[in-house]
Amino acid sequence: MATELNDRLNKLFCPKTVAVIGAGAEPDKVGYAIMDSLVTGGFPGKIFPVHPRHESILGYQVFRNLKDLPYVPDLAVVALNQHSSVETVAQLSQMGVKGAVVLAGGYAEMGSTGMSLQQKLRLAAGDMPVIGPNTLGFLNANAKLNVTFYPRVLNPGNVSFLSQSGGIGLAIKAKADDEGLGLAKWIGVGNRVNLEFHDLLEYLKQDPETKVIGLFTEGSSNPRALVKTLESIIPCKPVVIYKGGKGDKADSVTVTHTGAAAGPDKIWQGALRQVGAHVVNSASEMVTVCKALSIGRIPRGNRVAIFTHTAGPSIVACDILQNEPNFCLTELSNATIKKIADILGPSVPVIHKNPVDGAAGAFLTEPFHKIGEAILEDEAVDCLLTIFCEHKNWIYPSEQIAELTRKFDKTIVTCFIGSALTIHKDRALLHQNETPVYLTPEDAATGLAALLRRLEHISGS
Amino acid sequence: MATELNDRLNKLFCPKTVAVIGAGAEPDKVGYAIMDSLVTGGFPGKIFPVHPRHESILGYQVFRNLKDLPYVPDLAVVALNQHSSVETVAQLSQMGVKGAVVLAGGYAEMGSTGMSLQQKLRLAAGDMPVIGPNTLGFLNANAKLNVTFYPRVLNPGNVSFLSQSGGIGLAIKAKADDEGLGLAKWIGVGNRVNLEFHDLLEYLKQDPETKVIGLFTEGSSNPRALVKTLESIIPCKPVVIYKGGKGDKADSVTVTHTGAAAGPDKIWQGALRQVGAHVVNSASEMVTVCKALSIGRIPRGNRVAIFTHTAGPSIVACDILQNEPNFCLTELSNATIKKIADILGPSVPVIHKNPVDGAAGAFLTEPFHKIGEAILEDEAVDCLLTIFCEHKNWIYPSEQIAELTRKFDKTIVTCFIGSALTIHKDRALLHQNETPVYLTPEDAATGLAALLRRLEHISGS
Repeated sequence: MATELNDRLNKLFCPKTVAVIGAGAEPDKVGYAIMDSLVTGGFPGKIFPVHPRHESILGYQVFRNLKDLPYVPDLAVVALNQHSSVETVAQLSQMGVKGAVVLAGGYAEMGSTGMSLQQKLRLAAGDMPVIGPNTLGFLNANAKLNVTFYPRVLNPGNVSFLSQSGGIGLAIKAKADDEGLGLAKWIGVGNRVNLEFHDLLEYLKQDPETKVIGLFTEGSSNPRALVKTLESIIPCKPVVIYKGGKGDKADSVTVTHTGAAAGPDKIWQGALRQVGAHVVNSASEMVTVCKALSIGRIPRGNRVAIFTHTAGPSIVACDILQNEPNFCLTELSNATIKKIADILGPSVPVIHKNPVDGAAGAFLTEPFHKIGEAILEDEAVDCLLTIFCEHKNWIYPSEQIAELTRKFDKTIVTCFIGSALTIHKDRALLHQNETPVYLTPEDAATGLAALLRRLEHISGS
Repeated sequence: MATELNDRLNKLFCPKTVAVIGAGAEPDKVGYAIMDSLVTGGFPGKIFPVHPRHESILGYQVFRNLKDLPYVPDLAVVALNQHSSVETVAQLSQMGVKGAVVLAGGYAEMGSTGMSLQQKLRLAAGDMPVIGPNTLGFLNANAKLNVTFYPRVLNPGNVSFLSQSGGIGLAIKAKADDEGLGLAKWIGVGNRVNLEFHDLLEYLKQDPETKVIGLFTEGSSNPRALVKTLESIIPCKPVVIYKGGKGDKADSVTVTHTGAAAGPDKIWQGALRQVGAHVVNSASEMVTVCKALSIGRIPRGNRVAIFTHTAGPSIVACDILQNEPNFCLTELSNATIKKIADILGPSVPVIHKNPVDGAAGAFLTEPFHKIGEAILEDEAVDCLLTIFCEHKNWIYPSEQIAELTRKFDKTIVTCFIGSALTIHKDRALLHQNETPVYLTPEDAATGLAALLRRLEHISGS
């Protein structure tokens, strides 16, 4: 049964042909934005715009109605109002379309009238899976498919997001772009007329393009099914959860958003942690954690060394890491300490221990590389967090860090304390070499903590 | 006494002449970096490099020793090793130099030997104020003065930072640059040989260029004096505090960093909140909160309206705002609700209440402007948080938001859910118009919460 749904969802998410019902020619409107998204994203499949009056939109021939289509499309995007969408969904389902996206709002989020309209939509859909209603749509970056009404460049990767809120989903997408994190699928689930979180999670569980799953939810109509699904997924793939609608005031907002009452927040948080989910508290933290799990190596052990040329960042990194039960600030061997002392020489006044503070002796590429190597050669080290501050004349040793990642079968996370505007080239190199880069020590420590937690979950389960 | 110290510190931070003892010509070295910083920063005063062998550095005539200087400089930067620094500081103090920066490490952070060297440095300094040792130096952006060994462009503003850690200070500086937040003074306090936090805070309290004070500390040797000083400053200027070294593992690191044992964290946090300090937990949050207090208007009341075209971000904003006791999600008047309903028209299916979700009716500039105006005309609204998602074809209504800020004597904070790379122009306009811009709803809510907290403190004290 689940497999059957997965097959249907596969057609929906990886269609060869997309029909856009309510495609428009006015740049102000959603019906145009969807067409723009398909074109800007570079979708290589067939696009069938449907509209009763237009002849052509963005160079694509427009069909007057569904009956005029040359064949049944895999996916239909419905960009009509909430009432017309119901009739159209019934038609699409009868035609045998594999799946649909319904963009309109005006359903369960609108109280009892909307609830009853959503019930009609559910009946109209029959067994055709529907994303939405009240959604931005979805992205499949590897398929160059953007059926959201936000046209944009797609950066492919291996993280898939499910977001109950389009706006939070967009915040995560924007932050992921800025952080150099590529996406596989991004799905605005909306009101979930006949696809619950657990259905989509089951799909992502078996999706070979998805390595890490991120989820923003304001509550679920079936929290037990969600937790049960998570329990079965998390041993295979990490799931990062951001739960909105935490308190009284937010709850009253939540109810009228997608028609889902938020459950008591603490029960949720507890259940989620228990099944091994990574729980985060902002769109930024979602990206921070997903980036570590997407790009970084799962550590082979929990013993961490920190290497810096400025102590403060290593202190705040420890503040964050020590909240992770699976964190061990390792003790370096005497041999390692001696190697480091020899590299730095007697003129650099530092205490030789972990965190290793190379001070002025670690500004330059060569000693940085040698000290990093000495630390990683130590058998008591499983993970290394390196910290370096951007400087006009001293070079961020990204090449040396990448080389260390290739040489040692250990986990490296690196912090470049500098501007988001200057990191791009170094970051691309490091991310290619399984080394996530962060701009603040807090984010770097949060990323490493997620990797340690993942190790603990895999080892313990 | 405090006034006398302030006068001395004023010479130190706003010198007409800077001597660099240990100025160097090799780009690898700190002694060159300091010269580079002075030149790159555009310091308009006199620069006296001092070195026994060089003739000229970066076009500046080099003096063989301190005796050769044509007159006594206001400020001396000592870029020598920890031992030579002590002798030089004694000489500088005897010459009547107004203040010094000692960059070298190797003092109190190095255990008992270092402690005793730091004691010698203190004696050598006499009554000459010394920034450091074990510091990156300081910046005075309005004076185009950079005496850190990190050459960079300076973005002037009204926020001053004191950082016990150079690295955390750099993380804050980089983030502030990326966020469009200008600085007044940035001071790496280091080991605080004869200038404690409270001395520098007293200076910043009366500094006309400083509107907001940020402080990163790992602990203080005189926490009572610090708290007492904060108590006297915070009614005049807001102080934002980030405390590192929170737990056992971090504490053992802290002790060997700048020689200050971190106090039990909870006692600290409690005392800081009690005196009205804004307590933050990361370099990023430091910038988020300082930005609101630097750029935003202190609200005239605590009643907040939220205006969005996507509900999720307003929900997570409420999650954060409701942690602030002084937050009230206001009830809009029936007249306002009617105005908004008329602007949106009957075809946009939304529930009319606060947060105002204009959905597809608020994508375009004109209705966005009109709805914003209707909300701000409501007497039950003191603050407005607007949320807008970046779109290829729809324009971020930054000009309209700026106009609303000029028209209404109310507080506006705005969230642009989009890329850090595309916000620059809009952000400059909005920041000029007392409207802080953030890229995530969580940051925007954190900024607004800080303004509400500031209002509460001012009203209550």
